[in-house]
Amino acid sequence: MSEGKEESAPAPSPGGRGSGDKRERILRGAIRVFARNGFYKTRVSEIAEAAGVADGTIYLYFKNKDDVLISIFEDRLDALIRVLKREIAKCQTVEEKVEKIIHLQLDLLETERDLAEVITVNLRQSSRLLKEYAAPKFEAYLQVIAHVISEGQTSGVFRNDVHPVGAARALWGSLDGTLMTWALGDAKPSTLRKASTNIASIFLRGLAAEGG
Amino acid sequence: MSEGKEESAPAPSPGGRGSGDKRERILRGAIRVFARNGFYKTRVSEIAEAAGVADGTIYLYFKNKDDVLISIFEDRLDALIRVLKREIAKCQTVEEKVEKIIHLQLDLLETERDLAEVITVNLRQSSRLLKEYAAPKFEAYLQVIAHVISEGQTSGVFRNDVHPVGAARALWGSLDGTLMTWALGDAKPSTLRKASTNIASIFLRGLAAEGG
Repeated sequence: MSEGKEESAPAPSPGGRGSGDKRERILRGAIRVFARNGFYKTRVSEIAEAAGVADGTIYLYFKNKDDVLISIFEDRLDALIRVLKREIAKCQTVEEKVEKIIHLQLDLLETERDLAEVITVNLRQSSRLLKEYAAPKFEAYLQVIAHVISEGQTSGVFRNDVHPVGAARALWGSLDGTLMTWALGDAKPSTLRKASTNIASIFLRGLAAEGG
Repeated sequence: MSEGKEESAPAPSPGGRGSGDKRERILRGAIRVFARNGFYKTRVSEIAEAAGVADGTIYLYFKNKDDVLISIFEDRLDALIRVLKREIAKCQTVEEKVEKIIHLQLDLLETERDLAEVITVNLRQSSRLLKEYAAPKFEAYLQVIAHVISEGQTSGVFRNDVHPVGAARALWGSLDGTLMTWALGDAKPSTLRKASTNIASIFLRGLAAEGG
């Protein structure tokens, strides 16, 4: 504890810049070791080593290892939701919005293979984590997609006979499944770009209103 | 070891009926405890207890706990591939085949919530398991779907500008994502049936050839 306190001394306010940097460094280190060793086999000391901080420092920012994993998920999902909302707002049509949703997610992870593996594989390491912590944030993410689908239905561009949240889940599943096989497979950026074009064209045509 | 030998005495041939029953009982017990406690927290003795066999008996059929998880995945996927091929062969059109693929998978798991959780959540507990063992069987499964899509492309019913394996991955992802949120959520059969109709209609229209 005293070791941790010493480490955090340069930036004692939780929202301060130095504080945020260290928290982010821990999350980045954790993403690397979780992807390499899996969540269960990772020790907190290995996260500290990867982040270049003392073991005790981890506990200044996180309750335990579970909390680190949940924070990775929540932080990255928060960032994704912010980016999605910002970029969607710039699009002219709902079709562009759906394409943006797909390409943004696969593009963001293209350069972050470890993160893709942590989100698609490691988060599922514990049903309890998924059930208790990840669910509300995940719902907020699905709502962003569902909202675009609803909007398309209201304006007559998308068919009305699919459930917006159901379609959002199906679209998320396609992206998640593609990312998982990509992260565990060849992990070439070109593979992911092709996949993203495929998914966009299937869903856009699949959602289009009759005669649209 | 002697304990296990005694247990297997009534059916010494590995392919014998008694032997198969006991193996299946262990797999069923494992599905229950993995779904309840997660893969990492489960001890082999808990699998034995759930299956109603002696601890040593597990090792007559499986090398270790990893082997039990892989066997659940492989056995169930083998069964799924067999059922899919048999039922696809009875369909008249490729559209019917795609619908059959979707409904069969969600129907089979509807009554087996624990199995859905093990396949979608627990299998991802270890990237190593996924990478080393599950991959070939999983590819065989994807090929069944990809083959139907190719067939539809050849006959002009499905568009030619999507990659059959990419589309198969996207479809699998939609089913897997839907099953996961279902198994972790309310798990009502009606929710799953609605989802399956949604997915079928999005993919069928999404894959249809222009003017088809």
